Amino acid sequence: MSLFKAGNSAEEKKFIKSIEHVIGERPSNLSVYQLAFRHTSASRETAIRGFRESNERLEYLGDSVLGMVVAEFLFTKYPYKDEGFLTEIRSRIVNRETLNQISRKLGLDHLIEYDGNRRGMSPRSSMYGDALEAFVGAIYLDKGFRFTRKFIVGKLLAHYDLDAIIQNNVNFKSIIIEWAQRENKEIRFEILEERGNRHHREFIAQLLVDEEPFTTGTGFTKKKAEQSAAEKACEQLELK
Amino acid sequence: MSLFKAGNSAEEKKFIKSIEHVIGERPSNLSVYQLAFRHTSASRETAIRGFRESNERLEYLGDSVLGMVVAEFLFTKYPYKDEGFLTEIRSRIVNRETLNQISRKLGLDHLIEYDGNRRGMSPRSSMYGDALEAFVGAIYLDKGFRFTRKFIVGKLLAHYDLDAIIQNNVNFKSIIIEWAQRENKEIRFEILEERGNRHHREFIAQLLVDEEPFTTGTGFTKKKAEQSAAEKACEQLELK
Repeated sequence: MSLFKAGNSAEEKKFIKSIEHVIGERPSNLSVYQLAFRHTSASRETAIRGFRESNERLEYLGDSVLGMVVAEFLFTKYPYKDEGFLTEIRSRIVNRETLNQISRKLGLDHLIEYDGNRRGMSPRSSMYGDALEAFVGAIYLDKGFRFTRKFIVGKLLAHYDLDAIIQNNVNFKSIIIEWAQRENKEIRFEILEERGNRHHREFIAQLLVDEEPFTTGTGFTKKKAEQSAAEKACEQLELK
Repeated sequence: MSLFKAGNSAEEKKFIKSIEHVIGERPSNLSVYQLAFRHTSASRETAIRGFRESNERLEYLGDSVLGMVVAEFLFTKYPYKDEGFLTEIRSRIVNRETLNQISRKLGLDHLIEYDGNRRGMSPRSSMYGDALEAFVGAIYLDKGFRFTRKFIVGKLLAHYDLDAIIQNNVNFKSIIIEWAQRENKEIRFEILEERGNRHHREFIAQLLVDEEPFTTGTGFTKKKAEQSAAEKACEQLELK
């Protein structure tokens, strides 16, 4: 699935066009974008023995740039909301599932280079969100902070319906309670731990099904930790 | 303990000097720095009913700026280290305890405005690290990204001995095992959950003392999650 064979300049031109189309400017340093779409299954040997290059480092960088820009965006947009609100809404925005969707909306899924011949290797949706984060890292290295911020606010956040995100409070706990009644299971939630201080409090909740630990979740309040444990249980049980 | 009484311009001049001394440039927007040092116990009523202003929102912003700049710094400094290493070292750098120390080294503890008359209110060390993060947020709002990045890399990271941080692998697990032998307790670790995907794997480990849940910890590997649970137990038991 390698898009960049040596001398394959028609492919390369197409790639440049694709990047230009998404970011609205011609890329200057092509290699960082190429790296951003190189999944670990297609990682390459480097001059350093034992170090193979893929988009994972760029993903780490892009994740932090995205987190910061979204933090500032929300900080400015909601001057009278407290940090608990800002943290919660940010985590909904940079949620893996949402990033996967946006990555596909932007057409980035077509640019990912992965080894489809590897045993058990098929494109996974998390690959798309990962590539989006790595792409943000690449834009940052190529174009700098201001450009990247404009890209994130103008091109990525434009895909979000913020009001819907703020309103969106699916009650996973009640879905799990309904499931338990249907399946004749006994469930209960337990707070395993409360950590941090007054400003950074975090709770870990555990959902027990018939007294067996099933999932855990974390959150800034007990209720949110339980919601998070319930949400994971819904995923595992493929409810909704 | 309020440093900024109306018309108290001698105090204000002293404050400006202090900020200038730390950041190396005269602050332009004084109010954001004043807010950065306003602990929640000294929060003020705003024009918006029910919304009191303290440094908590700025702390949220500063935390994200600090995280991003440290991410980029490590990304550039260690081009052949994988994202697991970068993530781990970053978390050691932005660790609350370390931020508390640096905040005091910079003398920020003297600038914090809190209500010492409130029942049970005494300065807590986490207040210092929180104020440092809020201060970074204030610098970012006042001076922009490039200046803040230079401040973080030049003035904050200068306080770190990176080699020592990388080497620093205190074995909390063996401290806890020794404690258990001494106290004739039975301990074991249990992995409660493994979450995320191949790129963002996280484990939650629980330490049980005489089969009672005692602490939990998270980490990118099982070993690190157990270390983290052991570290918290060491803190609670005041070992080392």
